[in-house]
Amino acid sequence: MRIAVLGGDGYCGWATALYLSNQGHSVAIIDNFIRRLWDYELGAQTLTPIRPMPERLRVWEELTGRSIELYTGDVTEYDFLSSCLREFSPDAVIHFAEQRSAPYSMIDRKHAVGTQVNNVVGTLNLLFTLREFLPDCHLVKLGTMGEYGTPNIDIEEGYITIQHNGRTDTLPFPKQPGSFYHLSKVHDSHNITFACKIWGLRATDLNHGVVYGTTTEETAMDEALINRFDYDEVFGTVLNRFCAQAALGYPLTVYGKGGQTRGFLDIRDTVRCVELACLNPAARGEFRVFNQFTEQFSVLDLAHLVKTAGEQMGMPVAIENLPDPRVEAEEHYFNAKHSKLIDLGLAPHFLSESLLDSLIEIAVRYRDRIDPSLFLPRVNWRKAKNERRMDAGAKAVHTV
Amino acid sequence: MRIAVLGGDGYCGWATALYLSNQGHSVAIIDNFIRRLWDYELGAQTLTPIRPMPERLRVWEELTGRSIELYTGDVTEYDFLSSCLREFSPDAVIHFAEQRSAPYSMIDRKHAVGTQVNNVVGTLNLLFTLREFLPDCHLVKLGTMGEYGTPNIDIEEGYITIQHNGRTDTLPFPKQPGSFYHLSKVHDSHNITFACKIWGLRATDLNHGVVYGTTTEETAMDEALINRFDYDEVFGTVLNRFCAQAALGYPLTVYGKGGQTRGFLDIRDTVRCVELACLNPAARGEFRVFNQFTEQFSVLDLAHLVKTAGEQMGMPVAIENLPDPRVEAEEHYFNAKHSKLIDLGLAPHFLSESLLDSLIEIAVRYRDRIDPSLFLPRVNWRKAKNERRMDAGAKAVHTV
Repeated sequence: MRIAVLGGDGYCGWATALYLSNQGHSVAIIDNFIRRLWDYELGAQTLTPIRPMPERLRVWEELTGRSIELYTGDVTEYDFLSSCLREFSPDAVIHFAEQRSAPYSMIDRKHAVGTQVNNVVGTLNLLFTLREFLPDCHLVKLGTMGEYGTPNIDIEEGYITIQHNGRTDTLPFPKQPGSFYHLSKVHDSHNITFACKIWGLRATDLNHGVVYGTTTEETAMDEALINRFDYDEVFGTVLNRFCAQAALGYPLTVYGKGGQTRGFLDIRDTVRCVELACLNPAARGEFRVFNQFTEQFSVLDLAHLVKTAGEQMGMPVAIENLPDPRVEAEEHYFNAKHSKLIDLGLAPHFLSESLLDSLIEIAVRYRDRIDPSLFLPRVNWRKAKNERRMDAGAKAVHTV
Repeated sequence: MRIAVLGGDGYCGWATALYLSNQGHSVAIIDNFIRRLWDYELGAQTLTPIRPMPERLRVWEELTGRSIELYTGDVTEYDFLSSCLREFSPDAVIHFAEQRSAPYSMIDRKHAVGTQVNNVVGTLNLLFTLREFLPDCHLVKLGTMGEYGTPNIDIEEGYITIQHNGRTDTLPFPKQPGSFYHLSKVHDSHNITFACKIWGLRATDLNHGVVYGTTTEETAMDEALINRFDYDEVFGTVLNRFCAQAALGYPLTVYGKGGQTRGFLDIRDTVRCVELACLNPAARGEFRVFNQFTEQFSVLDLAHLVKTAGEQMGMPVAIENLPDPRVEAEEHYFNAKHSKLIDLGLAPHFLSESLLDSLIEIAVRYRDRIDPSLFLPRVNWRKAKNERRMDAGAKAVHTV
């Protein structure tokens, strides 16, 4: 298949582009590298030293003989996006090209507005491009399990059948997102639903759980292909941060009671899920939703898993409970369905001690690059003045 | 009370500002008059000759001794909006300052993106202003019944209690909006819900039905205070358009079978509903939703009412069914609850022959200003190239 990966320089996008290329698909990456700019803004960097995209692609071609096309630009610019996609003419477009950090969207008004405008406009541009030029192309959109929030009922995959006053209808599952970022994804979902309905587009929304891991078969081929490993409080996901904290002998920082329960998956399953969606496209006019995760854990569960793995590797690991900077339930019901990707053939990698070992090993290997000041929460959901707090955070000195 | 009316130059905003001022409240209008610019863009104008805002306010003060403050600018500019509201320091902010036409949002990509960015950013700016400077101020936001779409179950006021797999929760009512404009209102609702939850703001979302009528007690005091009467296909609401068509001897144009059923209300009830919301504010942290309409009609019901009224006034009225340019069910279940404003004391004006007579009389009085080319649908939900179609429409010559 011909597959365009929007946001192919990011954490999930890069792993996906290489995997799809390795499977024999014709792949193009569209990216403006702004994720790297946000690292400069935050004074953060990926634990693993990622290479510039031209080098990444040159090494990939040298190793495998497979070339990936690169279009450099911003999907919020319609003329750029539509001309790239017309030229490449993909069978499927994977849309990762969004600002994807909840804390980043909560820094201040400018970041909230920037996140929503960036994500909503990019997706609208993509929908109009498909309608105008590629009406048969399958949109595979990265959503998030965070769109649902934590309702006190089971979470279904996108839709729920409701009986009410003697009548029945199947309606979009009600959404209770917990940050301006998560809200932007809910806005996208509504916009895509509508575009499929009125224009007959075909789309699959992959409601991603929290992704962990850094290595896939492809990124492990050469250090020049290494993927991001974000451990900072803004872009790092919780398991990566715990591993970096363990590698440096810092306590694992759990927000509140740590009962926040979410769906998780290995990045090796992320890339496979995306391919499964491409190989089994939605029908014309269909907006299909898959919940894309393989296991549920509470944050405290994960902390204990890392503590055990670290201690088996000879590293003492402490767990510290911090006040929760987010506004969220610290303990709640959470039971989300996730059978549709399994039905399509996903064979999950479950979180194991060996995976945790390898994650901690990566963190140890690059420990000289770890900045422990990035562990601590600097963005507070309740406060108005996070800019100033972030400046202060960046200047703070942390000692073990 | 001190009440700021954002979008106070528009159809509902102007009537509301005058009504609130007449009730003795201190009123400020914030508007950039862009609604008047959109008329120039569309080659349309209000049937009634509205005056510039400074003249409107001068006459109002001469007649009543009451002054209304005016801040001229764009709510998508945060510094402008926040400085106005800090200076005026309102107890309640009524937010009408959005692009409010479904067909306008469906013209093309630029209008879809413009509508969503304008509406979402304006509302985000308002939420951040309230958090930063006026955390106790009550936000009264104009939503729309169109957020719900036409589900096959009863529509509740904002929330629905769902029993599912043996558990129960009360969740936001699932939304199925039918245009990029309606989608923008759903985005707003989600953003406001979140802001109330995390920052403890207080907000009431008035899910407006379709408003009809043009005269209120205040706008009737002097011709300089006359309100808009939009009859064009883009900004005109259906009952106003039918009255203009009847006045000119044109057939009433019904889309499809005309079974599209919606909630409707008289503009005299709109202004009262807004005041009732202000006088009975939401609690801190509460996001309250009222369905603001008084009667349900199908489009065909309305056409027959106008036909009967017109014929009693000696004007023969025909009804013509056109292909529906929108993507919507032409016949469907629709039963929406709307008791919360009644509980607060709303005494509705129901649609009556005398109201229809007066609407048709206004249309007859200003019939020389009617451009019948504006009656016909120029925006098609399914088509990609509405700009060019709109150019053609503007040049078309129509004869009786």
